[in-house]
Amino acid sequence: MTGDMSDSVQTARQVAEPVLREAVARLDPLTARVAGYHLGWNDAEGRPVRTGGKSLRLTLAVLSARAAGADARRGATAAAAVELVHAFSLLHDDIMDDDRTRRHRPTAWVVFGRSAAILAGDALLVLAMDLLLGHGTRGAVGAARCLSAATQRLIAGQAADLDFEHRQDVGVEECRQMAADKTGALLSCACAIGALSVEAPQPLVTALAAYGAELGMAFQLSDDLLGIWGDPRTTGKPALSDLRARKKTLPAVAALTSDTVAGRRLAELLASSGPLSEADLHEAAQLIDQAGGRAWAEKQAQHHLDASERILGGTPMPADVRAEFSDIARFITSRDH
Amino acid sequence: MTGDMSDSVQTARQVAEPVLREAVARLDPLTARVAGYHLGWNDAEGRPVRTGGKSLRLTLAVLSARAAGADARRGATAAAAVELVHAFSLLHDDIMDDDRTRRHRPTAWVVFGRSAAILAGDALLVLAMDLLLGHGTRGAVGAARCLSAATQRLIAGQAADLDFEHRQDVGVEECRQMAADKTGALLSCACAIGALSVEAPQPLVTALAAYGAELGMAFQLSDDLLGIWGDPRTTGKPALSDLRARKKTLPAVAALTSDTVAGRRLAELLASSGPLSEADLHEAAQLIDQAGGRAWAEKQAQHHLDASERILGGTPMPADVRAEFSDIARFITSRDH
Repeated sequence: MTGDMSDSVQTARQVAEPVLREAVARLDPLTARVAGYHLGWNDAEGRPVRTGGKSLRLTLAVLSARAAGADARRGATAAAAVELVHAFSLLHDDIMDDDRTRRHRPTAWVVFGRSAAILAGDALLVLAMDLLLGHGTRGAVGAARCLSAATQRLIAGQAADLDFEHRQDVGVEECRQMAADKTGALLSCACAIGALSVEAPQPLVTALAAYGAELGMAFQLSDDLLGIWGDPRTTGKPALSDLRARKKTLPAVAALTSDTVAGRRLAELLASSGPLSEADLHEAAQLIDQAGGRAWAEKQAQHHLDASERILGGTPMPADVRAEFSDIARFITSRDH
Repeated sequence: MTGDMSDSVQTARQVAEPVLREAVARLDPLTARVAGYHLGWNDAEGRPVRTGGKSLRLTLAVLSARAAGADARRGATAAAAVELVHAFSLLHDDIMDDDRTRRHRPTAWVVFGRSAAILAGDALLVLAMDLLLGHGTRGAVGAARCLSAATQRLIAGQAADLDFEHRQDVGVEECRQMAADKTGALLSCACAIGALSVEAPQPLVTALAAYGAELGMAFQLSDDLLGIWGDPRTTGKPALSDLRARKKTLPAVAALTSDTVAGRRLAELLASSGPLSEADLHEAAQLIDQAGGRAWAEKQAQHHLDASERILGGTPMPADVRAEFSDIARFITSRDH
């Protein structure tokens, strides 16, 4: 256990990226260029570049197949499919959230326009299903069902997230549910889908799904914390963009519902009309900290990380696979992922 | 043969609408309201209304199951799934095309905002797949593959359609391909998917798919003609909206490539910068007629309708089902559908 995820990522990319690239190449050329830009494979003109993301879901899905004792290659299609759904959701979310920067580059809709980005998202979503259904095995159909159920939850989570922006009375529980839907469901599916696609025994699939759900919550909490106190040079997103959009992230909601002076002042600030100034945003971040939202979120993230480790420890799988899962968990909940 | 499609539509709605409504009711409440509004089931506040579309794809899919000798009910899930994909595509197309009116009502994005409409489209697309995969039979998986392939073509067709708006050199052949992708693919799938889902013999499925592809072209050509010379009170869309958006519809492209004085004047008009005036739009419609685009499209529509009738006549199926297919074909290519 090196606290590093580079070997797992490399293996996963080696086996699954060709499947992913071949699938995207089947799209019409206009849509393929938008998708390739969003995936970090080409620039706006279609020239090859390499600025991709961390391939987290791809890596987890390949590990999932390996957890069932299968060769990494047998998880490649499922891994590509889950990564496609993730790419779809980011493409559409960036439009809905009006986000102009991702991974240090302008977002796809800024470069190609909203219509092309909506369409590319649609195409990637269908491509994910196509890929699995094209395989046609019982395992692939099970994987497709897992993925479509997770995608439905992801959409419900995004709907709640957008709704929360206009509400001042969001509770911690509904916020937790939103995060479980928006982030947990697809990570849970990623951790189970490789095993599902190689027709692993149900108890293993269930344990891996539970593992992924805990990991998902730990990841979202860490991401929320980075969104407020992370370095934009590392995160690739503008500083304090969640607060700017009045997103009801978990640390913010914990602060808002804390019944403290800082929490009430934060509520006033976020309820004000008009855009928030830079000073407002920095004050909001400070108030979340003072109201205990930061400490609470750090503790919750650790709690979910511990729960994931317990599930992992109790699930029979090859030792090297368990260690790689563990490294990934540590990496994505660290301060600078 | 009554030249009427009301019996087929009623049967299809009776068996498939409950499946459709139950599926949409499973969505989160926010998304379900947007979807219900778009489907004509409720108003913006969620109160029940009844302003639905013509349920064309739903009806064809139920007939498709009946063509294979199955009870209408056995085509219900496939029918609901194909109608959901159609609803998804209209939701997203209305945003991309900036269309503000559909079926005499403001479009969903005008009422609920772009984000909610994007999300509702995504949800309906996933729901279509969910529905079929939830069934899990071999027939349902075949149906899901048919539907995902058709959706991918639909997206490619919409991408081409958007691209054509900015191009002055669109040829008749690529325009025909765009229409075959954007409209033909899903109608072809609708005509085959019921038979597929009841595991009908391959030759029947293939014949029904070919029938639907011809019907799709006839329908698109009729729709293009109505978009220029139809009565907005009947079509539910603003007059001349395709020309206003500089859409390269088949009659327009036939005129543009006609090598006539009227065709060249039309090209000048459409190449001009800035919005087209009402006078411009009426002149453009006249020029398409003078350049022969209208007569050509009418002849082409008849040609595809005849081809569909020939396929229908040569395909073994219950006589009442054949008659109902035929009535639908006549209805949707008539002047006032």
